[in-house]
Amino acid sequence: MRGEPAELYEAASHLVSSGGKRLRPHMVVESCRLLGGTKSGALAAAAAVEMVHNFTLVHDDIMDNDDVRHGVPTVHRRFGTPVAILAGDVLFSKAYGVLANSRRPPDRTVRLVRRLAGACADVCEGQMLDLRMAGSRGAPTPGEYVEMVGKKTAALFEAACAMGAVCAGGGSGDEARLASFGRNLGIAFQITDDLMGVAGDPGATKKPVGNDIREGKKSLPVLMALGAARGAARRAITRPFGNPGAKKEELEAAVEAVRGLGIEGAVRDTARGYARRAEAALRPYGNGEAKESLEALLGFVVKRGA
Amino acid sequence: MRGEPAELYEAASHLVSSGGKRLRPHMVVESCRLLGGTKSGALAAAAAVEMVHNFTLVHDDIMDNDDVRHGVPTVHRRFGTPVAILAGDVLFSKAYGVLANSRRPPDRTVRLVRRLAGACADVCEGQMLDLRMAGSRGAPTPGEYVEMVGKKTAALFEAACAMGAVCAGGGSGDEARLASFGRNLGIAFQITDDLMGVAGDPGATKKPVGNDIREGKKSLPVLMALGAARGAARRAITRPFGNPGAKKEELEAAVEAVRGLGIEGAVRDTARGYARRAEAALRPYGNGEAKESLEALLGFVVKRGA
Repeated sequence: MRGEPAELYEAASHLVSSGGKRLRPHMVVESCRLLGGTKSGALAAAAAVEMVHNFTLVHDDIMDNDDVRHGVPTVHRRFGTPVAILAGDVLFSKAYGVLANSRRPPDRTVRLVRRLAGACADVCEGQMLDLRMAGSRGAPTPGEYVEMVGKKTAALFEAACAMGAVCAGGGSGDEARLASFGRNLGIAFQITDDLMGVAGDPGATKKPVGNDIREGKKSLPVLMALGAARGAARRAITRPFGNPGAKKEELEAAVEAVRGLGIEGAVRDTARGYARRAEAALRPYGNGEAKESLEALLGFVVKRGA
Repeated sequence: MRGEPAELYEAASHLVSSGGKRLRPHMVVESCRLLGGTKSGALAAAAAVEMVHNFTLVHDDIMDNDDVRHGVPTVHRRFGTPVAILAGDVLFSKAYGVLANSRRPPDRTVRLVRRLAGACADVCEGQMLDLRMAGSRGAPTPGEYVEMVGKKTAALFEAACAMGAVCAGGGSGDEARLASFGRNLGIAFQITDDLMGVAGDPGATKKPVGNDIREGKKSLPVLMALGAARGAARRAITRPFGNPGAKKEELEAAVEAVRGLGIEGAVRDTARGYARRAEAALRPYGNGEAKESLEALLGFVVKRGA
């Protein structure tokens, strides 16, 4: 992304150029292809979704006071908070510009904007729920956790797949099925991601050992571990929980304790339950490259770190 | 604006409910009526523009570290910076949602989204130019000042009027004329606003005396004053300029010095030049309530504080 002032667009492109998995644009394109559309017909929507994703990363890093992402300094660490706020805002603006300025029947563009705007509001609401969960003393219920994740993470996956369906000229039934695929995949993705944040191999996650325990993140695996732990195991988990100054040995002991509880299987079962619902949403569609690609993505998501 | 989590929507509505002139939604409605459209046909677009305006206020106040707006604490002072960032983001999201979810021919909605997204990107670029002007040692040229103001302020006025034209079903010629009206009115508005920030009556502006001098704002009237001032008058202006700890007497002396230079006439002439261009854009349209209302707005803008 280029433009003037150059510094603003450099800040806006900082995370995009530092890597990332590009899951969401891939989902827009494959959802479009599943319904007989072309990759080129989905590219503008794919770019818009990735820009929105990057906008949320830039602003979330400010709110969460995170210093590093994808192995590089976050935008506000590198450019300062005011420029980072603006960089997020300009990504947000350009995402809608890309949608409105690309050629397709106007009723489809309106459906795309509706989907994207709905997802953006959900992501804001989900981040607010996350901020308040982190700040409160009590533990959320698994249902509250899934509501938060459904908005903060899965809403944009949902929009990505629904938008792919719209780009292909799919009807409202197709749009709803692909939305269901994306939403359930998104929840499965986040649950697996959270499992890796608690008990994942630091070599694979590129995050410090026990990162989410130190940050006091009340994710599903943490809630399940705390629900199951007694005595010494419980103390090993609660001691470094939410303590920014926790020692490496304490965090290692907490990760050991979580692993010893055998909750990994139960967490992965929960993720697989959402993955099965995602798979079911694709059932009406014939086999082919795009369906294989979406199913492969689903397999990747639930097997990560296993 | 209501929704859950309640705190997020309370923060997002904080400035809206504390007042403000509502110039931009008024401009959407009157531009629509000028072309034979109805008020109700313009309301969704008017709401979207006002939400975007409020989003920019919330984020600008964070960047500029401002404590008070419309006589109440700014959103980040009242709710904290993370919630304020999110409140701005949710206003932004809902603005596009309102456009995409209201009923009108889809090609018009696409034109509205295109206009609003273009203005949003311009506003970000303008704010970035403003941040850099404030942070640099040198003085911008009047041309650089007008470029900044054209993006930071006038772009949304331009979009507001163009969007009103689109809501009325106007063609691209109408859209361009109303855009020109809004843009030129916006520049005239900001120049007059800046004049009041430097030498305005604190009773009328509701800002402390010499507010923009203390903040070191390099606005057109300041640039013109510094260009004209010599000797003691120059020292009186530069001493408190950009000094957050400047004393009230120093600021009063600076305001006196600015007034003594007689630049107010020249600044108002510049604003009136833009107002005349705005007026010319309306010339093809017949007289009537809406035209009178838009011309009255123009008169209000250039006469403010005089």
